[in-house]
Amino acid sequence: MLAEIITIGDEILIGQIVDTNSAWMAQQLNAIGVRIKQISSVSDDRQHILTALAEAQQRADIVLITGGLGPTKDDITKKTLADYFGVGFVENAEALANVERIFAKYNRPLLEVNRQQAMVPANCEVLNNQNGTAPGMWFNHNGKIFVSMPGVPHEMMYMVEEQVIPKLKATFKLPVIIHKTILTVGEGESFLAERITDIEEALPPYIKLAYLPKLGQVRLRLSGYADDEAILQQEIDTLAAHLTDRLGSVVAAQEDIALEKAIMNKLEQLGQTISLAESCTGGYLSHLFTQHPGSSKTFLGGAVSYSNQLKESILGVTEDNLRQYGAVSEQTATQMVEGALRNFKSDYAIAVTGIAGPDGGTPEKPVGTVWIGVAGKGNIVVKRFVFGNKRRQNIERTAITALGMLNTLLAAQ
Amino acid sequence: MLAEIITIGDEILIGQIVDTNSAWMAQQLNAIGVRIKQISSVSDDRQHILTALAEAQQRADIVLITGGLGPTKDDITKKTLADYFGVGFVENAEALANVERIFAKYNRPLLEVNRQQAMVPANCEVLNNQNGTAPGMWFNHNGKIFVSMPGVPHEMMYMVEEQVIPKLKATFKLPVIIHKTILTVGEGESFLAERITDIEEALPPYIKLAYLPKLGQVRLRLSGYADDEAILQQEIDTLAAHLTDRLGSVVAAQEDIALEKAIMNKLEQLGQTISLAESCTGGYLSHLFTQHPGSSKTFLGGAVSYSNQLKESILGVTEDNLRQYGAVSEQTATQMVEGALRNFKSDYAIAVTGIAGPDGGTPEKPVGTVWIGVAGKGNIVVKRFVFGNKRRQNIERTAITALGMLNTLLAAQ
Repeated sequence: MLAEIITIGDEILIGQIVDTNSAWMAQQLNAIGVRIKQISSVSDDRQHILTALAEAQQRADIVLITGGLGPTKDDITKKTLADYFGVGFVENAEALANVERIFAKYNRPLLEVNRQQAMVPANCEVLNNQNGTAPGMWFNHNGKIFVSMPGVPHEMMYMVEEQVIPKLKATFKLPVIIHKTILTVGEGESFLAERITDIEEALPPYIKLAYLPKLGQVRLRLSGYADDEAILQQEIDTLAAHLTDRLGSVVAAQEDIALEKAIMNKLEQLGQTISLAESCTGGYLSHLFTQHPGSSKTFLGGAVSYSNQLKESILGVTEDNLRQYGAVSEQTATQMVEGALRNFKSDYAIAVTGIAGPDGGTPEKPVGTVWIGVAGKGNIVVKRFVFGNKRRQNIERTAITALGMLNTLLAAQ
Repeated sequence: MLAEIITIGDEILIGQIVDTNSAWMAQQLNAIGVRIKQISSVSDDRQHILTALAEAQQRADIVLITGGLGPTKDDITKKTLADYFGVGFVENAEALANVERIFAKYNRPLLEVNRQQAMVPANCEVLNNQNGTAPGMWFNHNGKIFVSMPGVPHEMMYMVEEQVIPKLKATFKLPVIIHKTILTVGEGESFLAERITDIEEALPPYIKLAYLPKLGQVRLRLSGYADDEAILQQEIDTLAAHLTDRLGSVVAAQEDIALEKAIMNKLEQLGQTISLAESCTGGYLSHLFTQHPGSSKTFLGGAVSYSNQLKESILGVTEDNLRQYGAVSEQTATQMVEGALRNFKSDYAIAVTGIAGPDGGTPEKPVGTVWIGVAGKGNIVVKRFVFGNKRRQNIERTAITALGMLNTLLAAQ
């Protein structure tokens, strides 16, 4: 079963907003076994929308459309859909009641332009909009389903979860699709591929393996398509276990989660805590941890010791050390990670100090030079890396590399 | 001049990643006067890619393609482009040297699969990839430009900025477009609009004003379209000065920069420094500052005092205070910001403590409750906010609100 997503509106095309709706809808549809063939963002232009609808209808069985349903003149989705299906408009009592309910709630007078929101193409079935005035619309056109929804994320999400997904399940006999992701860190795509060539080549035609690399991490994603869910799930699980065994300590998680979340999960299972001493990552590593709910169970906090003075006062790095070896050195990284363990009283700690750039490099220590220390349970590992000359990339790569080192340290224990 | 963007790869279609590349590219192209007609995300499927290319070519003059350039088997963009243009492959010396450079840098052996990355369609001009092994490819096909780039954001961004934009400017006669942005913080879109109604209504038809709201900030963007660049620039500058005068202390910058960068610029001009004491933002504010080159001139560092123990040991928050008022209180925020000034020896400081959620709320202090303190030069302002129930949004809104408070404090001095 194939679907397409069409988002309508200029905001996406001028880059004013990032289209987060489509990824969310794609996840929901994939979860019920509907594959997305194409996602298209088109402008508020009648002819362009008509063409996009016709193209999508040719390729897919389901077309989800978002945006262009507001009360203003530049929102033309509804009119264009009526033209596409060759029908007129009718007033929908349920949609009108919803508009009236919302205006009453906010004590606002109902303008004619708002009443118009209850006028819908004659061939549609209205989807109630719990969170806004524009109704959703469900069309069954020659056996193909078209669904038009508002572009406002929480209005669309409610409609998809509560109405569109159940109706799709009732309308179509859907196949089973199962995805399983293995998160690896510290080894490149082509090296991983070499290590699992035989497994990859022996995959049945209905199971695919994708490599999704991102800054020092590679996600391996198995996707299976079949009729019997239980058998497929078992096959995918067996394959995932096989891949995980083969790849060993570079595996951080057997689910599609963030690397830092995988590390926190491991720490939580062990009942252990972590703290940080960040120089060149400047709070980024702390932010990675603390963006996740429940991070306070394992993450105690840390220092962003950007200046040398803070390295001394908060972490106990010695002045001698800073003078003799410099802030970016094995000795300073070592004292930083030891200081974090001692002062913040955590079981594990990460310290990073480096030259993120673009300035501050020397021939001996070029931009991108970073010392990373990880420590815990009597072990300490301190390593030097030389990344590139882009500041943000150096910050991100340092963070991921540090997490990879901690993952290795945890795997060894 | 019209362009289309095609992103290739299943990650977007299964909703695993959000397509942030397209919005960024759309912004870059709009800035040089190229409008985006359509953005399409298609799968790693030969026939589907061929159809998408043909459709885009019909509608646009420029087609930007990202993704599907990795060394593994599921990446088929390059092969499909060669088929589309009806050409064979050649080895590109520059691309090979780049692959070799990168492998040498990381001391890794060059595999055959990596050498293959230097094989490109015979009709393309190679765009060097500073940050990765897959070369970009520029095709001029019957007067239409096709550009294929990696999907990895920083690889793509470097290529667009350094190579694609200059080459597009050299290839096409693009109109003169001048944008000027005024960054405001702390006041809503409709309030700003009321205050500048007369200026907005008197704009000439070739200058438009857009309101770009984002999490507590509103960017006002003047966009002018004309033939004479010098005259247009002068007009835009005059208008921007007029708007800035009118809006006063809510203006953080007269350029399109990040809010924290605007604050650092002000501090640098004043020769002042800043430090942070972060609890619920968990390093995010530090990261905002330190992602910018040169931040060490004004940013000394800070504490991510997630646990109460760290609030006491690093910032000198008293145990009494924590017991009596709790970690999320006016008293704790006050002691945190005072502790940062005292212990980190900065001229200004920001402290935040709150309940980011989703857990940890109480009837008295619901999720989203945040206390923010800003201090410096003998002044201290501490305020309570109640944001929503979404963790990441609470973190971001807290950070922006804190920066807005510091902007006001700086404007008053």
